[in-house]
Amino acid sequence: MTFTPPTADQLLAIRVSAGIDELAQSERFAAATPDLVEAIVEGIGAFAAGEWAPLHRAGDQIGAKWRDGEVTLPPGYVDAYKAFVEQGWNSIAGSTEFGGQGLPFTLATATLETLGAANMGFTLLPMLTVGAIEALEHHGSDAQKAMYLPKLISGEWSGTMNLTEPQAGSDVGALRTTATPITEGPHAGKWRIAGTKIYITFGEHDAADNVVHLVLARTPGAPEGSRGISLFIVPKFHVEQDGSLGARNDVRCVSIEHKLGIHASPTCVMSYGDDGECIGEMVGHENGGLRAMFTMMNSARINVGSQGVQIAERAFQQARAYARDRVQSARAGSADKAPVAIIEHPDVRRMLMRMRALTEGSRALLYYTAGQVDRGALGNEAAQKRAELLVPMLKAWGTDIGCEVASLGIQVHGGMGFIEETGAAQHLRDSRIAPIYEGTNGIQAADLVTRKLGYENGGVLQALMAEIASEMEDVPEVAALARDAAAIGQWMSTTASLDDKLAGSVPFTTMCAVAVAGWQLARQSRASDLHGKIAVTKFFNRVIVPEARGLGSSAMAGAALLYDLDSEALAG
Amino acid sequence: MTFTPPTADQLLAIRVSAGIDELAQSERFAAATPDLVEAIVEGIGAFAAGEWAPLHRAGDQIGAKWRDGEVTLPPGYVDAYKAFVEQGWNSIAGSTEFGGQGLPFTLATATLETLGAANMGFTLLPMLTVGAIEALEHHGSDAQKAMYLPKLISGEWSGTMNLTEPQAGSDVGALRTTATPITEGPHAGKWRIAGTKIYITFGEHDAADNVVHLVLARTPGAPEGSRGISLFIVPKFHVEQDGSLGARNDVRCVSIEHKLGIHASPTCVMSYGDDGECIGEMVGHENGGLRAMFTMMNSARINVGSQGVQIAERAFQQARAYARDRVQSARAGSADKAPVAIIEHPDVRRMLMRMRALTEGSRALLYYTAGQVDRGALGNEAAQKRAELLVPMLKAWGTDIGCEVASLGIQVHGGMGFIEETGAAQHLRDSRIAPIYEGTNGIQAADLVTRKLGYENGGVLQALMAEIASEMEDVPEVAALARDAAAIGQWMSTTASLDDKLAGSVPFTTMCAVAVAGWQLARQSRASDLHGKIAVTKFFNRVIVPEARGLGSSAMAGAALLYDLDSEALAG
Repeated sequence: MTFTPPTADQLLAIRVSAGIDELAQSERFAAATPDLVEAIVEGIGAFAAGEWAPLHRAGDQIGAKWRDGEVTLPPGYVDAYKAFVEQGWNSIAGSTEFGGQGLPFTLATATLETLGAANMGFTLLPMLTVGAIEALEHHGSDAQKAMYLPKLISGEWSGTMNLTEPQAGSDVGALRTTATPITEGPHAGKWRIAGTKIYITFGEHDAADNVVHLVLARTPGAPEGSRGISLFIVPKFHVEQDGSLGARNDVRCVSIEHKLGIHASPTCVMSYGDDGECIGEMVGHENGGLRAMFTMMNSARINVGSQGVQIAERAFQQARAYARDRVQSARAGSADKAPVAIIEHPDVRRMLMRMRALTEGSRALLYYTAGQVDRGALGNEAAQKRAELLVPMLKAWGTDIGCEVASLGIQVHGGMGFIEETGAAQHLRDSRIAPIYEGTNGIQAADLVTRKLGYENGGVLQALMAEIASEMEDVPEVAALARDAAAIGQWMSTTASLDDKLAGSVPFTTMCAVAVAGWQLARQSRASDLHGKIAVTKFFNRVIVPEARGLGSSAMAGAALLYDLDSEALAG
Repeated sequence: MTFTPPTADQLLAIRVSAGIDELAQSERFAAATPDLVEAIVEGIGAFAAGEWAPLHRAGDQIGAKWRDGEVTLPPGYVDAYKAFVEQGWNSIAGSTEFGGQGLPFTLATATLETLGAANMGFTLLPMLTVGAIEALEHHGSDAQKAMYLPKLISGEWSGTMNLTEPQAGSDVGALRTTATPITEGPHAGKWRIAGTKIYITFGEHDAADNVVHLVLARTPGAPEGSRGISLFIVPKFHVEQDGSLGARNDVRCVSIEHKLGIHASPTCVMSYGDDGECIGEMVGHENGGLRAMFTMMNSARINVGSQGVQIAERAFQQARAYARDRVQSARAGSADKAPVAIIEHPDVRRMLMRMRALTEGSRALLYYTAGQVDRGALGNEAAQKRAELLVPMLKAWGTDIGCEVASLGIQVHGGMGFIEETGAAQHLRDSRIAPIYEGTNGIQAADLVTRKLGYENGGVLQALMAEIASEMEDVPEVAALARDAAAIGQWMSTTASLDDKLAGSVPFTTMCAVAVAGWQLARQSRASDLHGKIAVTKFFNRVIVPEARGLGSSAMAGAALLYDLDSEALAG
């Protein structure tokens, strides 16, 4: 199945929703000229289509293999990763001080979006590295930055995030991995790490020269819960002072999971310190681990939200190709009884329009969010707050629509969609992880209604919805949805109990996300004559937006509805 | 993962929504006394939980295997099927004349629902046999009935339906398999069949002594399209006059598909007449095949709609068990910081309540529909028409919610849900076929708005919605939805173009289905003190019903919205 990078739509979203031209007026992002932006978006498109997309099926069918602690990526993956590194695609947003290009996050977003649409499982490798880079840029010592950042930014080394343990999933504070200070010998000043981590994406693989694990652990006497967590660098191979690789550290991949999808991405169980010799360095302050994790979290969640857009794009492309080729039945009511391509049938068309509207709507939200992140990085505090407000909307709704569009893609194929060889089913299997990891969508929604809604006593949300309602006066559906969301936000900010807020958090998050997406689609539609954008926007307004308004009752239904039945009765 | 048959809820639905006591007042169904009904529902529950549920995972992980034309079911399946036959579970609704028990369809529905919740893939085997039985009961000659029905009703032989060919999927009329009359020799009066059929469920397997294929084919000079199709019986083994099995017929399973789910169910490519010696008998009249197929279609579609209920029940049971056992995080806002079972967290609870409400709502629709079928069989023409109106609603919405609930089940499990060993992912994989086969959900919706809505110029739908609105005066959400559906139905019956109707058909179908489900849930809730029914009904009214109302805009959006973009532009 050929992959065509969605370059034109990305460029439109980057221009209108991220506002790249305004960003380029800053000194920091002056390099992001229209020419360079186009070169990057087109370049990564060509690379992804040429090098990563062709490996997509083998990644699923063969998958990453574990043997004796070593993980082998599927055929072709190592070479494709090396090409990615050599061409400099990993370094777009990395700091110029350490070899990066210092370009806006918006452009790194475009790079990951395109790569992930070509091959979602594989793209987790650079995506995780971004998290490690960010943690070190913000919290690492000068020595740590100098030692690790150049190779992480180039991509020669990859990064991981080690949070989860069997008893500590969504509740990171429950983790038990320990870090003991080393006071003597060659590693004095460092820490001895011991524990087991699960769900470690690309925790072990054969494509990068070194794997830099960022590991959350507890130091002796640390407070209980999330306030007693510190962050450590644990390299797979020790790094010598001259930057060369030394001996193997005492960390190993014990097994990889057998998963529903993203088979190209090894999900590792990592064991630290089996021989008592796992050496790590602390990043930032003792017990400051959670703060460091939060640093990474915004962009990691944006990148996962982007995975929803990615899989939607890929599933849409496959479905429309099939619908254009598959000839079946005459058009209903037509005098001509010759069978037509199924794209001509109204309900197939409805599905395709829905897939496209959800894909482009979520992309609009993605780039609007990325643009706000870049403004935040330039010191615009209001934009920073708005970005933080948008992140849970994007992560939750983006990944939800990823699953929905992938499922619609199967439906468009009819019986063929259920046959694995067709490839449509892979998209659904791959997509299903995104609502779970990097904070489940329930946790995103809780973050929105408990933390983010609290910004300025609800003012940050109210300002956004007011802006949408006022700009969308001539798009009554979107304006009405923004007013609904504002009213529910108001209720949540004032009279609703914590339980009531949480009970309505998921539908509320969807409503907010759709309002922003509808707004940005409308703005794109006004600013462009890109073929189809007007029709897609109209479909979004008439179909997707009213559905989101239908969630209002659920968002305000309150917790009593959920607790009427006691747990025992609910559980049967 | 243990399976607990949903006996109490089934009995409630059978009593209130199917109205079994009224059915038992007829002479034909007089045997269906409350005691017998309870014995059947409890008995199949015990059988399904004890014999079929334990094979569920192996069915997925090992699956049916093809080798040299033979298909081997996973370990334990053959014995479990033989136990099913020996205990007489296959014969519930079969005609008493041929060894069946002549009980209402409603009770056969309960049997299949329970078996399918225990093991959806396996239950396709008896489900397909039902279709063959119905076709022969209605269209077979006396000789054919005498020869085939006793063994099909007992389950010693199984049945298949052979419609699809590579170029003839949803468009059955495009099929090319041929039937040539035999004028001489021992098979004179029979037909020589030649062609290839795909997607033949249990087309070959090792659990029944014979497989009776019902095959659609074209006779020489038959009209083009669906009016030129005839139905044939093609047994795997020829049947001698004394009922014993003779030689192998010239039909073979060429391969089985590699599918997303239902791995226990072999989906066969069947080749008829490779050696020119495939012998079949015509069922009914020449060119009457489509009519015979329509006979089976109602109950087959009900049974597939039931599969949505089944998978939802199973996924719900697994998710609630996990949510009760998995301890993670303290309750938000609680003074007690000890972690609690995740079922205590509002959003997990919301997901579980949603799963349960959708499961019980779709079950209510299922048994309401089954009860109308039984009334139709008793000669009530209004009920017959209403049943036919309900079938596409049940098939489409039932299978949609099956996928939704299975997906929510994964989400409740968090990261564990994505790991295959957990078993939650299997439900999603299994569920995804149901919106596709037995007429895609788009075809169901088209059937509703083009054929069924036409009954009495829309009157059959209007009568149903008026009955709901009037009975639900004190459940304003459901009454409002029924009025919305009536208004859209009115528009579709009068001013809407064919394209407009088709464009809105899927959301309209959902609205209708939810209105009926909400109505029947409310009726059950009034008629019972079954623990939890009131809370589940309230959740359905406050959450599911308003969402369905949110589809109104989409149902009436019209076709222009879909064709604004020409096919080429949409397809990119």
